[in-house]
Amino acid sequence: MLAIKVNAGIGELAQSERFAAAEEDMIEAIVQGVGDFAAGEFAPLNRIGDLEGAKLENGVVRLPDGYEAAYHNYVEQGWNAIASPEEFGGQGLPFTLACNVIENLGAANMAFTLLPMLSVGAIEAIEHHGSDAQKAAYMPKLVSGEWSGTMNLTEPQAGSDVGALRSTATPIDDGEHAGQYLIKGQKIYITWGEHELAKNIVHLVLARLPGAPEGSRGISLFLVPKYHLKDDGSLGNRNDLRCVSIEHKLGINASPTCVMSYGDNDECIGELIGAENRGLAAMFTMMNNARINVGSQGVQIAERATQQAAHYAKERVQSSRAGSPDRTPVAIAEHPDVRRMLLRMKSLTEAMRALLYYTTGQTDRGTLGDEAASQRGEVLVPMIKAWGTDTGIDVASIGVQIHGGMGFVEETGAAQHYRDARIAPIYEGTNGIQAADLVTRKLGFENGEVYAALMADIIRDAADEQALKALAEECAEIALWMRDDATLDDKLAGSVPFCTMSAIAVAGWQMLLQKRAIENGQAPALAATKPVTTRYFLDHVVPEAAGLKAAATSGAELFYSLTAEQLTG
Amino acid sequence: MLAIKVNAGIGELAQSERFAAAEEDMIEAIVQGVGDFAAGEFAPLNRIGDLEGAKLENGVVRLPDGYEAAYHNYVEQGWNAIASPEEFGGQGLPFTLACNVIENLGAANMAFTLLPMLSVGAIEAIEHHGSDAQKAAYMPKLVSGEWSGTMNLTEPQAGSDVGALRSTATPIDDGEHAGQYLIKGQKIYITWGEHELAKNIVHLVLARLPGAPEGSRGISLFLVPKYHLKDDGSLGNRNDLRCVSIEHKLGINASPTCVMSYGDNDECIGELIGAENRGLAAMFTMMNNARINVGSQGVQIAERATQQAAHYAKERVQSSRAGSPDRTPVAIAEHPDVRRMLLRMKSLTEAMRALLYYTTGQTDRGTLGDEAASQRGEVLVPMIKAWGTDTGIDVASIGVQIHGGMGFVEETGAAQHYRDARIAPIYEGTNGIQAADLVTRKLGFENGEVYAALMADIIRDAADEQALKALAEECAEIALWMRDDATLDDKLAGSVPFCTMSAIAVAGWQMLLQKRAIENGQAPALAATKPVTTRYFLDHVVPEAAGLKAAATSGAELFYSLTAEQLTG
Repeated sequence: MLAIKVNAGIGELAQSERFAAAEEDMIEAIVQGVGDFAAGEFAPLNRIGDLEGAKLENGVVRLPDGYEAAYHNYVEQGWNAIASPEEFGGQGLPFTLACNVIENLGAANMAFTLLPMLSVGAIEAIEHHGSDAQKAAYMPKLVSGEWSGTMNLTEPQAGSDVGALRSTATPIDDGEHAGQYLIKGQKIYITWGEHELAKNIVHLVLARLPGAPEGSRGISLFLVPKYHLKDDGSLGNRNDLRCVSIEHKLGINASPTCVMSYGDNDECIGELIGAENRGLAAMFTMMNNARINVGSQGVQIAERATQQAAHYAKERVQSSRAGSPDRTPVAIAEHPDVRRMLLRMKSLTEAMRALLYYTTGQTDRGTLGDEAASQRGEVLVPMIKAWGTDTGIDVASIGVQIHGGMGFVEETGAAQHYRDARIAPIYEGTNGIQAADLVTRKLGFENGEVYAALMADIIRDAADEQALKALAEECAEIALWMRDDATLDDKLAGSVPFCTMSAIAVAGWQMLLQKRAIENGQAPALAATKPVTTRYFLDHVVPEAAGLKAAATSGAELFYSLTAEQLTG
Repeated sequence: MLAIKVNAGIGELAQSERFAAAEEDMIEAIVQGVGDFAAGEFAPLNRIGDLEGAKLENGVVRLPDGYEAAYHNYVEQGWNAIASPEEFGGQGLPFTLACNVIENLGAANMAFTLLPMLSVGAIEAIEHHGSDAQKAAYMPKLVSGEWSGTMNLTEPQAGSDVGALRSTATPIDDGEHAGQYLIKGQKIYITWGEHELAKNIVHLVLARLPGAPEGSRGISLFLVPKYHLKDDGSLGNRNDLRCVSIEHKLGINASPTCVMSYGDNDECIGELIGAENRGLAAMFTMMNNARINVGSQGVQIAERATQQAAHYAKERVQSSRAGSPDRTPVAIAEHPDVRRMLLRMKSLTEAMRALLYYTTGQTDRGTLGDEAASQRGEVLVPMIKAWGTDTGIDVASIGVQIHGGMGFVEETGAAQHYRDARIAPIYEGTNGIQAADLVTRKLGFENGEVYAALMADIIRDAADEQALKALAEECAEIALWMRDDATLDDKLAGSVPFCTMSAIAVAGWQMLLQKRAIENGQAPALAATKPVTTRYFLDHVVPEAAGLKAAATSGAELFYSLTAEQLTG
């Protein structure tokens, strides 16, 4: 709630006409309500989802008992419709609040929450690029959650290089199928590509039209429903598409990761969304928000791991306090290094969350037409995605460590977080791609002014917080070096450490703003802890980030002083 | 081989009478031979061991097909006997070479290699604390590997706090069992506690004698064989002990982690090893070497993960080089950030290995009576154990990342390393305990002179390597602060970051020595790569470690400014 107020600035957003519904009462009802719903309906399914996982049986994906009912209740209670347009049944609230819904659900059950997360992408694509007819036919059911959506980009030879994809779309020229195409191809890593929780699945599929240019400029976006719609909008025949197999993964086992085959019988029919050969651009529309939600998964897993480790550390009694004449064993939360680990988990989680909602707030301002905020939001996206997900792993790993031997035993549950967390730095653009996006594209906004202004704000607000100020100054300086003096390879070579430094600078700043808001009387319940978690972040984490400067600025020469053969031999 | 020569200084060791057998030819035969054996016999079983795991069926632990034959061949070829005394069938070679055997086997199959690793502890305990009769009865078969050994410390209420254990040992006063005891109690986390690969299992069990003092001063060590020995040394009846269950774990699935029950029928018989109530001291004898071997597991998993990721990065073609007019896709090993990741994996692995063998070399010198080396070795143990195992996770995690989506799919194998690696920071004393051992015990050796001399050596050899020199100077300064000004809580609060900084300083130094040895003509095959991996370590990793100074020196006050309830709430 504090992050929504202070970092996203929801009060200011609610002053706009568009988001006028986002009044304080409404926000509190959502935050409280989704927290209760997540704890009551999604969290209890997390472990069984991990243990049993999604299973493919005769072309049908089965989830463990309870998933169908919980999803039904999720739809029924309207949680899917928070940020969608009112004309299609949505509540028209800020993206920030939709993110809060996802954050709460994901902390309860990350694998399950991928289902609504993926639907968000389909909704946004159709909202921004669909025809009126497409919107009328698909939006209401997608907004409610009765139908779900998927994103189909990857093919075996086309992973990070989406432009290499080979799936095809051929216009049907029989006079009866105007605007329709035969889709053919195989897609991999399709999250929730097949399941029975929603009545229909709306697949958004990237494919090539006949004669399209090679590479990323020849890709178009198609809407390919699992069930065709009849003229009255009700469900008709099954389309020619199927789930071939699902992956056996390290984690998020309740989320079916599907190999999807389109057009095995040459009868898979789809509709073009947006303009021909503009499919990647359409995909990018929704990518920002999707990446923010993946960054949120770092927060989600960190929150869950922290709660679990804290509970364990409070209950587990082992050894007396070092140096104490009293030999009575104490809860391990009393030992200095366990305190360090707990405080680190808590501080990192809060700081990630502060960055997350600062990012969503900027995105919402962008929606209101604030171009500067929109650009700043885009600069923040790779930071929350990359640093958020890397840190999700780190926090989950500390959570295992606090449990000691119990942490390595699967029954405890700490290990699941460590496994689940590992996907987030990979999908929705690897963290290397995020960092590349930051240094090659976003640093260049307004010739570097967008990034520079962000760091200037941090330096201004840091006041006497020397470490934070110094870090932001270093970041600003590195950005100038990247703009003016570094080669493209140099920039890329330093991109990941630079992205981490930048994220920590912004997160530290936003934590500081939270702390000051509390000093000014907000959120009195956090008055004891927030100064401590903020101090830890500013005094421990920020100086660590400063240690990355050498890595960010060393350039690419060393990396290319060996041949690939020597490097990998 | 380079690390054995340069960092362990095997040539110098071989000049001693005791290790005269460690001639260059012999060493090369061992290093080459065990590498071939590990690749041929242990590595092919790694995946099936993960997939099928150890299974408990009617009290018997079953391993997947192939494990029994591979262990048989391991024993047959004499790999178990490298460093044990010649009078019991060992080769009497330096510990350094036994570590090299373990390192090679563990890189091939970490879970399997825990079997011989645990036997080392039993061998050392009996060698140093057993009676002549015990040595004669048990050493030859343990040294050959025909029998295996286990360590039984942990009980549910006694994890890191070994002193809290409750298992009992009662003298048998019937006149027929002189020196024998009835053992009773349950032990958990017993690695390879039950299996059929060896003909007998020699359990070393910590338990309390009647009337023993409370806590760690009342613990004695007992030898409890799975099968009793007849007077002629052959196997007799089964002892009253059994494996109750095995854990379902995050990784190392081929290593059965057993709950062991001793004396269910009050007929479990064991013999005292060493003096009454001196069991913990006896355990500590072997703990140094065991911790070094666990640190080695960081190297092992890092080596395996690096090889696998390098292979993938060389084969996987995706996207053209950024900024290149040539749009031909290249192997991902050509992209700057993948190069960064590969170089990081390789550099960290080599640096860990350099620290590992520097530590074993000091330990071997200690065996030869060099007290200064022995003390330095002890100072290094927490560094290689804690930093080595933390870094093993980091490297395995990068390995997953390099694989992209494939890394998250279990079939690829990269994920197994990430799972297997997670145990090493926990067992054999958590890394928090390692760091506490460093700052509360080992920093105090000779009033701090042992640690100070180590850093002084680094500063001297660093010459114009400014970052390394600065790091060692910081470490030396922090050590003085810890000695003279810090409270016990302050030291413990900074212990983990300080341990990491220290380890990286020593590892960087040892990498530098490797590089210089190559410049002087050694190991010409590494002349191209070693300068690059060394530079990466000194220019990227060392400055990162410098960023930990604030965390190492901030003290405990912040950590205790909240109550446990506030911190965990």
